[in-house]
Amino acid sequence: MTKLWKKDEPIIKSLLETDVYKILMLNYIFRNYTNLQATFSFINRTDVDLLQYVDIDQLQEELAHVSTLVFTADEIAHLKGWAMFQSGFAKNLAELKLSVPEVSKSADGRLQIEASGLWSHSTLWEIATLAIVTELYGRGKAKAEGLSETQLYNSGMDILLEKVAFLKENPQLHGSQFGLRRRFSGPWEQQMTEVLLAETNFLSGVSNVRLARELKVEAQGTNAHELPMAAYAYARAKSNFDARNSVYEVLADWQALYGQTALIMLPDAYGTDVFLEKIPDSYAYDWRGFRQDSGDAIEFGEKIITFYQRYGIDPLEKLVIFSDGLNLKRMQQLQSHFAGRINVAFGVGTNLSNDFGLIKPLSLVMKLTKVNGLETVKLSDNIAKATGDPKEIEIAKRIFGYDTTFREEVVY
Amino acid sequence: MTKLWKKDEPIIKSLLETDVYKILMLNYIFRNYTNLQATFSFINRTDVDLLQYVDIDQLQEELAHVSTLVFTADEIAHLKGWAMFQSGFAKNLAELKLSVPEVSKSADGRLQIEASGLWSHSTLWEIATLAIVTELYGRGKAKAEGLSETQLYNSGMDILLEKVAFLKENPQLHGSQFGLRRRFSGPWEQQMTEVLLAETNFLSGVSNVRLARELKVEAQGTNAHELPMAAYAYARAKSNFDARNSVYEVLADWQALYGQTALIMLPDAYGTDVFLEKIPDSYAYDWRGFRQDSGDAIEFGEKIITFYQRYGIDPLEKLVIFSDGLNLKRMQQLQSHFAGRINVAFGVGTNLSNDFGLIKPLSLVMKLTKVNGLETVKLSDNIAKATGDPKEIEIAKRIFGYDTTFREEVVY
Repeated sequence: MTKLWKKDEPIIKSLLETDVYKILMLNYIFRNYTNLQATFSFINRTDVDLLQYVDIDQLQEELAHVSTLVFTADEIAHLKGWAMFQSGFAKNLAELKLSVPEVSKSADGRLQIEASGLWSHSTLWEIATLAIVTELYGRGKAKAEGLSETQLYNSGMDILLEKVAFLKENPQLHGSQFGLRRRFSGPWEQQMTEVLLAETNFLSGVSNVRLARELKVEAQGTNAHELPMAAYAYARAKSNFDARNSVYEVLADWQALYGQTALIMLPDAYGTDVFLEKIPDSYAYDWRGFRQDSGDAIEFGEKIITFYQRYGIDPLEKLVIFSDGLNLKRMQQLQSHFAGRINVAFGVGTNLSNDFGLIKPLSLVMKLTKVNGLETVKLSDNIAKATGDPKEIEIAKRIFGYDTTFREEVVY
Repeated sequence: MTKLWKKDEPIIKSLLETDVYKILMLNYIFRNYTNLQATFSFINRTDVDLLQYVDIDQLQEELAHVSTLVFTADEIAHLKGWAMFQSGFAKNLAELKLSVPEVSKSADGRLQIEASGLWSHSTLWEIATLAIVTELYGRGKAKAEGLSETQLYNSGMDILLEKVAFLKENPQLHGSQFGLRRRFSGPWEQQMTEVLLAETNFLSGVSNVRLARELKVEAQGTNAHELPMAAYAYARAKSNFDARNSVYEVLADWQALYGQTALIMLPDAYGTDVFLEKIPDSYAYDWRGFRQDSGDAIEFGEKIITFYQRYGIDPLEKLVIFSDGLNLKRMQQLQSHFAGRINVAFGVGTNLSNDFGLIKPLSLVMKLTKVNGLETVKLSDNIAKATGDPKEIEIAKRIFGYDTTFREEVVY
């Protein structure tokens, strides 16, 4: 039996223990937002008192270890092998030095973690922090519940093998493993991925750069909300007009870096409907497709099909990636709904990397909350997922002409 | 005899008692930097203890009066008559409501005045504050020195009449009266302008919008350093690359508003040499010319001639406006130096509006010091005129490749 935990080792042992899209975004940030100050804040969306299970000293020790890591020459050479980056990126990576986030306890006793500084630094804390907190929580919770490593492992493996059986019956399903940030543990993420690779044809790739490298599978990722959120916050401090345009400028800058590769739009930060309404025509032709991360998935896919048809583009040349709280059944449903109409792909996270039955995974996130000292705001296609100051949310709605009313409480 | 002071009336009685370029810039700011937060700070470049002569309560009363002013329907209709503004500008003007700047005494006893808030608000305080402080200083200084209004008036008029004689002998000289901000007093600015208009052909126009309207002369103005300074500070918080380009984007935005009118570039905010080096070609063709506001004037004019020749443009189709601490002799010298080579025009301020012999005018300025909470920085062609945090000055030098070494202490 593989161990669930390696308690004598740090949880994060390499800066490549991060999602592919963080590396792509890091390159983008170094180039376009070199001096931007950004804060990422840890947010526990549940009522669970984390400090009951997570030892704050141990947490700080794990974070401190991450801050000692650098991108090694070997790792940089590996990233160069992707042939996606200009030469300056290697130099920026080599010089990157993280400082430890601030860990504290709020007045009402909740765990607080804030990473501040240059955006190119603070962005790297999101994945590391979430993976560390989640793993420490799992250990603490298991102890509190009197669950042994073997019990947990067996339960997790049973559930995984049910999925393997399901995937064998549904060989048309393919997806990318996006589960790093909320994985039950590092060893488990690896074990689970190895099983899926050995037993099924499901995995098209893995988001964890280190793991993809080690298992020799494709490292896959797109881009995240932090891009339009930072661009919007920065531009909003100039004019509402610039703020409105910022979400497209982000993509133009992205395309300028990555040419025709890695061109997946994430349209929902300030509402997909209004995003599609004002989009410059060329984006419809140049970009490979869209990622869905909030709101109703079927409705989203239908919108995208209509969108491409409006341009006379065959949707079967394009792609929708679903990544919002998926499980295998949901994937199967989406796949069959869109079969023969538009290409679909899936990014599956928690449901693969933290599904043990005995311990419920928590909805933990670490979000971009401040840009140059100003609070960020996001709307998303599910207004329950909107973040930021209520007044600024209303302003953003006006700026974008947002009138989506979909609301669904967020589980994870 | 005209009175020098009308002590029973407020010094600033209309928001049109401002420079033309503030109105042009205000329209620009409303459109392009609607939400930018900007601070203007009063700076006394001399060792004179202003509070010895200026009653702080009276100062606050004068500023408070300005904050009660609005652009009246009649004034807005007048500005519309310039046929330079989009319809939205009138609405923005009508809604504008200023809040009073903060007046305080520094630890070492110096007068401090800060106007903060939206840039479109704080920018209007520059001219009003300077005119008020300068006029109150003149009154206080006269009292302290035991100088009567008549003595001063006679001295000022003698000096003015000498200028009239000089200008009659030099009818080729033409200039714009830019003296509002450092005028000895409101009534004197008007009296002096009327004399020049009646006795000479010198004045091509006047910067004071209210005065130009009243005397039916052309209201003249260009644009100021606050534009590239704000754009640079805002863009610098994103990346050095954007900061480098910001000085050109400001001009593109300006041109988008004003088409082929009012196109005078002020190139020295971060060094004229490097500004000219990277300028987009179209600017050389589209814009009418340049304004010189720091560094060596002759050298500047020669640079501009060379610049136009490089593009195969006849410099006699273009214009240089000199506006850096001019007097009539200096104007004559510059005029004859550039005669037949490039068109020259002059903006004369303090030397016309505050030249009494008995009381020396002070070098008082009110500058854009903060943008979205970040300190601004300016280099100029005279490094003694550089402003901002020394570290940020060094960074700006690197960003622009600035290597100008000209240094001349600033008198006014």
